Amino acid sequence: MSGKNILFLVLLLFIPVSIAAHYLEWGELTVFITAGLAILPLAGWMGTATEEVAVVVGPTVGGLLNATFGNATELIIALVALNAGLVNVVKASITGSIIGNLLLVMGLSMFLGGLRHKEQTFQPVVARVNASSMNLAVIAILLPTAMKFNSQAIQEKTLQNLSLAVAVVLILVYALTLLFSMKTHTYLYDVGMAETTEDETHLKKPNIWLWTGVLLVCTLLVALESELLVDSLEVATSELGLTALFTGVIVVPIIGNAAEHATAVTVAMKDKMDLSVSVAVGSSMQIALFVAPFLVLAGRVLGQPMDLNFNLFELVAVVVAVFIANSISSDGKSNWLEGVLLLAAYAVLGFAFYFLPFVDGMA
Amino acid sequence: MSGKNILFLVLLLFIPVSIAAHYLEWGELTVFITAGLAILPLAGWMGTATEEVAVVVGPTVGGLLNATFGNATELIIALVALNAGLVNVVKASITGSIIGNLLLVMGLSMFLGGLRHKEQTFQPVVARVNASSMNLAVIAILLPTAMKFNSQAIQEKTLQNLSLAVAVVLILVYALTLLFSMKTHTYLYDVGMAETTEDETHLKKPNIWLWTGVLLVCTLLVALESELLVDSLEVATSELGLTALFTGVIVVPIIGNAAEHATAVTVAMKDKMDLSVSVAVGSSMQIALFVAPFLVLAGRVLGQPMDLNFNLFELVAVVVAVFIANSISSDGKSNWLEGVLLLAAYAVLGFAFYFLPFVDGMA
Amino acid sequence: MSGKNILFLVLLLFIPVSIAAHYLEWGELTVFITAGLAILPLAGWMGTATEEVAVVVGPTVGGLLNATFGNATELIIALVALNAGLVNVVKASITGSIIGNLLLVMGLSMFLGGLRHKEQTFQPVVARVNASSMNLAVIAILLPTAMKFNSQAIQEKTLQNLSLAVAVVLILVYALTLLFSMKTHTYLYDVGMAETTEDETHLKKPNIWLWTGVLLVCTLLVALESELLVDSLEVATSELGLTALFTGVIVVPIIGNAAEHATAVTVAMKDKMDLSVSVAVGSSMQIALFVAPFLVLAGRVLGQPMDLNFNLFELVAVVVAVFIANSISSDGKSNWLEGVLLLAAYAVLGFAFYFLPFVDGMA
Repeated sequence: MSGKNILFLVLLLFIPVSIAAHYLEWGELTVFITAGLAILPLAGWMGTATEEVAVVVGPTVGGLLNATFGNATELIIALVALNAGLVNVVKASITGSIIGNLLLVMGLSMFLGGLRHKEQTFQPVVARVNASSMNLAVIAILLPTAMKFNSQAIQEKTLQNLSLAVAVVLILVYALTLLFSMKTHTYLYDVGMAETTEDETHLKKPNIWLWTGVLLVCTLLVALESELLVDSLEVATSELGLTALFTGVIVVPIIGNAAEHATAVTVAMKDKMDLSVSVAVGSSMQIALFVAPFLVLAGRVLGQPMDLNFNLFELVAVVVAVFIANSISSDGKSNWLEGVLLLAAYAVLGFAFYFLPFVDGMA
Repeated sequence: MSGKNILFLVLLLFIPVSIAAHYLEWGELTVFITAGLAILPLAGWMGTATEEVAVVVGPTVGGLLNATFGNATELIIALVALNAGLVNVVKASITGSIIGNLLLVMGLSMFLGGLRHKEQTFQPVVARVNASSMNLAVIAILLPTAMKFNSQAIQEKTLQNLSLAVAVVLILVYALTLLFSMKTHTYLYDVGMAETTEDETHLKKPNIWLWTGVLLVCTLLVALESELLVDSLEVATSELGLTALFTGVIVVPIIGNAAEHATAVTVAMKDKMDLSVSVAVGSSMQIALFVAPFLVLAGRVLGQPMDLNFNLFELVAVVVAVFIANSISSDGKSNWLEGVLLLAAYAVLGFAFYFLPFVDGMA
Repeated sequence: MSGKNILFLVLLLFIPVSIAAHYLEWGELTVFITAGLAILPLAGWMGTATEEVAVVVGPTVGGLLNATFGNATELIIALVALNAGLVNVVKASITGSIIGNLLLVMGLSMFLGGLRHKEQTFQPVVARVNASSMNLAVIAILLPTAMKFNSQAIQEKTLQNLSLAVAVVLILVYALTLLFSMKTHTYLYDVGMAETTEDETHLKKPNIWLWTGVLLVCTLLVALESELLVDSLEVATSELGLTALFTGVIVVPIIGNAAEHATAVTVAMKDKMDLSVSVAVGSSMQIALFVAPFLVLAGRVLGQPMDLNFNLFELVAVVVAVFIANSISSDGKSNWLEGVLLLAAYAVLGFAFYFLPFVDGMA
């Protein structure tokens, strides 16, 4: 059994601990921390289970599974928060997932990978297509915010209608990027794929019932723990002296993405930069083109209407992150200094969110 | 006779219809639609006539002719609107022409071309020079708007002086880009040229008098029809439930650019991507570096002073369009997904302009 | 003796003249102009002396010397202005140095170099690393300004704390870029280096005591003349009908950077584009990643706290300059038209700063 799995089993103990903390009222901060720790192994196993099931059901359905459940943990946390009416926490965690994946994960990968390898390369065409997709997502977030900014008197209803229309466009584009990568232009993605399978040769077919079971149980438990996390979030963060915005943008996404962070960094150090970049950028693309618009649609159904009108500062953070990540990745080469630049951008954004005293409308 | 010419002849019937509609007071909406339809064949023939005359007078004068009359229809509509004091309609149609060419035309070209050809290529150096020129144009539009934004108390006179100075710089740069492409660095543009002539080999010299005549008559008729279009614009659009801004940004440019749209898409499907991109980007460059500053100068002469202070939302649209178009075209390669991304950006912007309820200062 | 040195000796006469002008009260305008002229040769010799000393002490210490004293003139002027409490003049000159180096110097180099050579090339990897570093610097300036903008009620103390944290990150990144270029990835910079030494082969070792003396004397005199320049700045510029902002952004940086301008343009005409670009971009990187954060720290020590909250218009200027310079330099190729585009961007920004009537908070 790998070291990772042993760590995960230990962390699993936090599931009963967090539940106990909640019912025995050990304090919101304790609930928040233990629920956060309990989510880590669950998120990790959901990732593994998704991949194993994907192997059995074949590339097409498997690809769709990966594309839909790849950010399942974040989606669940966001749905729970949305249902609780914490629309601004949801927006903050979308912002945080995008900048976390593009700057922290990709930055750490390029930095640590670059310390071992002088220059690392990856498919520039894929990097460019991803960059353009992220640009589109930025535009989609930019417009409702700019509209709100342009005339404060704008009706919330109009913003929601625009956000709905934009969400439908984004989900359509997401579907088409899947078609592109899995059907019409697979050869561009072959390098990354080869690297994956080389690593995870399945001599015997994985047991689909076992892994589907794991997937279901983990999904259920994550939902459960997410409730504890979201319920305790506001009190816990104010006890820590943090704003809800900082927590939503910096703390929550680190919890939700921990497993992917580990994967991306590990493969980068093995010089499989194609896979590393595709995990980091792919994850942020999924958030921007699928999770965020899905939440807009879900909000309509749940009666918790969510628009894409982010606060100015979140918008700046996303624009800046996408811009610098694109400019660094577009040539298909990386070195340790480029990793440092991404990490520095993340640090600077982190400081800004830390010092930001109060944001209008932020719960 | 080609199918296109038969269609054009039929559309020609709308010239008398639109005039009748105007004088017999069939309603402004009827005038608007029939005048719009009547302009389509005239714009198409003006393009053909310009090219035929250009063949006779030689590459240098011909290039200048193309560079000046290439967007003649839009220029005429804009001049008529400017003369009628509809400064905001003029600005809206400039915005719309730029985003229409970069996103709709180039997007359709890359999408439909990409459906037939897995990967299409074009001169990256030309794409980059064009991209940088468009960036300069964006800066030129950005500064007066930012200045207005920076201090609301700024005098209209100052904005106009700045706009005049900026307009002179842009026209100068436009002249130098012509010098670059037609004199000092022609070899970069050779591929596209070769494709054009290959297609339109002239075994016998075209009749210059005939085509000059066509050019003059069409110009006259477009001026005429533009009056009808502009006069009926406000009432007609409000009858359709559209804002003047949406009409100016989305509807008018589609009418004015229809012929170019058809050309760009047709050649893209024949895998002549160099020509297709140069039509789309070239046209938007001409609008930004020649038509817009020319209108600023013309406005001064006509006593209808126009500055380059666009509304915030138009500015965002232009910035966003130039940015995503540059990021997609800068590598000299395209595929159908990149076309989809441009079209999606256009759709998202279109939704935003549709939902925008009211823009300060928009007539 | 070269023509440059004769010119410098003549300009040296302005040292006593400027001092006389100050004490004999010949008018602030006279003091301003003569002090400005006196600084030109001093700045030139400081550059030469730094390079000569760098040759003797070896590449590592020499590189550090160059990296620290490369913008010594500007640093001294800024420190004097900061000490006099002219925080906004300091910010304006930082803005001006960045846009001056990226647009005016690089533009002139590419334009004049491009007139002689059809296409010039330079290391694209270095250009990209520099571009990404400048993007980071832009983010660092953007955030405090965006924060101020997001909520006007923000406390000055918070802005200063954020600026301090950001300044520390930037200086750290600057140190790491030096490590990258001088230690781990020197081979990327070899071309440029080879060109330098080829030009300045030192058959005999330069006299380190002589040049250290020159460096010290020049530094002292520049400090002195900077006092005269800064003291007379406000009155002199209002006599010239210029705003303090225009002087800070356009006039002062031209004085402070004159020597580098000459170097970059001269080597570009000799087709040593690597060196030319590295002088222009390197200088603006040094300003952004070292001089600006250093001044934030120095301000704290001098009791003249300076934050990185630039006015909106300066921010726009820097963003725009970095963006267009990156887009033009990222392919490692240049021609005369690209030079024109940079110069046009500089002209347009210059007009905007000239027409800007009043900026809040600008002394």
